[in-house]
Amino acid sequence: MSNAKALPEAGGQGVAPCCPPLAERPMTAEEAETAARMFKALGDPVRLRLFSAVASHEGGEACVCDISDVGVSQPTVSHHLKKLKEAGLLTSERRGTWVYYRVEPSVLAAMGRLLALPSAV
Amino acid sequence: MSNAKALPEAGGQGVAPCCPPLAERPMTAEEAETAARMFKALGDPVRLRLFSAVASHEGGEACVCDISDVGVSQPTVSHHLKKLKEAGLLTSERRGTWVYYRVEPSVLAAMGRLLALPSAV
Repeated sequence: MSNAKALPEAGGQGVAPCCPPLAERPMTAEEAETAARMFKALGDPVRLRLFSAVASHEGGEACVCDISDVGVSQPTVSHHLKKLKEAGLLTSERRGTWVYYRVEPSVLAAMGRLLALPSAV
Repeated sequence: MSNAKALPEAGGQGVAPCCPPLAERPMTAEEAETAARMFKALGDPVRLRLFSAVASHEGGEACVCDISDVGVSQPTVSHHLKKLKEAGLLTSERRGTWVYYRVEPSVLAAMGRLLALPSAV
């Protein structure tokens, strides 16, 4: 029944894509809850800049020390990175002093699929 | 300088895609403001269901009368459709008693491009 709705709650391990394309059929309430959480995480300009900073950083990962130039304090950066992680958009790994963040490509791909329109329209 | 940031403020006419892929380079503050507005509009489960209902409706358009089965009142439906329109995700046209809403495909495509990861990663 609802075996296609799984998305990472946190950490991004064991990611399964959520939801059919928005234009395929009306989303169910459950699907919308899951997908809205991801969109909401990117619905803040500072969070979006941080996400972009991680995604575009050398090697596809970054620590707080690498991406502190978006005009907010380091605790604020950490707070937003945590939110992105909770939404399943980033994974993290501690190495020594720093926590390194990495974009979860399968979740991005799932969001991209959600937005795909039928080519016949 | 900033000639690539244009997005519809309302109504969706004259849409120009916003922003490079998130992973290409860190977004500027201006780009992030524009893009976050779109993501935020889809960051609400009811709004996402309504958007999906319009996108998947016959002919790619729907009026409030067609999509009132998401469990909220018609004024609430109208409110959310207005928000989606303000974010440039829907366009609207009044015909007789009803306002018909249609997905703005170029904005969806721009959001999809934002989420694209480099294939070499």
